[in-house]
Amino acid sequence: MIGITHREDDMDSAPSHETIGRLSRYRRLLTQRMESGVENVYSHELASVAGVSAAQVRRDMMSVGANGSPISGYDIAALIECVGAELDDPLGGRAALVGVGNLGRAILTFFQGRRPKLSIVAAFDSAPAKAGRVICGCRCHLMDDLARVVAEQKITVGVIAVPAAVAQTVAENLQDAGVRGILNFAPATLRVAPETYAEDIDMTMALERVAYFAGRNR
Amino acid sequence: MIGITHREDDMDSAPSHETIGRLSRYRRLLTQRMESGVENVYSHELASVAGVSAAQVRRDMMSVGANGSPISGYDIAALIECVGAELDDPLGGRAALVGVGNLGRAILTFFQGRRPKLSIVAAFDSAPAKAGRVICGCRCHLMDDLARVVAEQKITVGVIAVPAAVAQTVAENLQDAGVRGILNFAPATLRVAPETYAEDIDMTMALERVAYFAGRNR
Repeated sequence: MIGITHREDDMDSAPSHETIGRLSRYRRLLTQRMESGVENVYSHELASVAGVSAAQVRRDMMSVGANGSPISGYDIAALIECVGAELDDPLGGRAALVGVGNLGRAILTFFQGRRPKLSIVAAFDSAPAKAGRVICGCRCHLMDDLARVVAEQKITVGVIAVPAAVAQTVAENLQDAGVRGILNFAPATLRVAPETYAEDIDMTMALERVAYFAGRNR
Repeated sequence: MIGITHREDDMDSAPSHETIGRLSRYRRLLTQRMESGVENVYSHELASVAGVSAAQVRRDMMSVGANGSPISGYDIAALIECVGAELDDPLGGRAALVGVGNLGRAILTFFQGRRPKLSIVAAFDSAPAKAGRVICGCRCHLMDDLARVVAEQKITVGVIAVPAAVAQTVAENLQDAGVRGILNFAPATLRVAPETYAEDIDMTMALERVAYFAGRNR
């Protein structure tokens, strides 16, 4: 069974990009298990589905204050809570999407209701025809209103789904509005301020790479 | 100016995941430059936009048989050709999309005409109502016809955009049909055969991670 320990301050050094990615993946696996009625999990089980070592799982779980037992493993519900306490913004993560084209609509639909503590609360587009409308469950605004809406709605994350040519300008507008995290779907390499965390999802590069190795493996 | 050298066999060791990713990014940058009328580029210019060192750019370019000059740099058109000769399947990369929901439609629209030598030529869905229709420019088939269509259309790449619960089965169906490269958008960790190259695009993990670091940087 899990023991939730008070996290010592000296354990609270900033976790890495990789650690946070693993925690997110663990939570997804844990949630799937819980939904199928399983109550406990062993580190080696999580390890095999997450593609890491069991020792890595145990280190990661200790880092969020969760301890399992060799006999009964971890209590899944408690583990999800520990991971959530680390990952989720206690105020609730609020994101804005910029660019309500095909990709933007897909992103809105994909994230709709997926995570209780993280949601896209506003969308922005340069087309006046979209302003004021609710598209894929999200209120759409004009780009001119970005700074005002970001401030009013306490938005901390920007999701960029605009054409490559305007992605850098959008990233700057988002940062000027106070956003400190950017998820970029545009096929462009963004330059951001040191205090901004940015991550790219480069679908073209990924598909080209898969096609390359598929060709070699044929 | 660039000199295209015949590649020695001993240089032709398998390039890594990272190298292929960089080549894809270079090509995107080079294509953008060419489209804006620029003819030459220096390794340090490519390096700064690609986020790597100039020495890395020169090594990568040598690996595809391209040599620049310290005075005039690389000829962009020739460089694009060298990178393409490495990246692109000479027969043309042919991909199949499985799962024609919102995300699947966005993927079809996103890749439509994006790369001349790599395209999604068939889509599959379990819903009979979609079979036979052209959706977002792509002919949709029933899942039951996967093996036949993959063989007939010489498809080597599978793009998975189905719900997590069925992603593993779809990956197995694709591999049984002869596909050796998989790009997985489903929030699931796939187990694939050693001869299959698989890459995940995990949008939920990426958004959670950006939100986490955005919260810390606030």
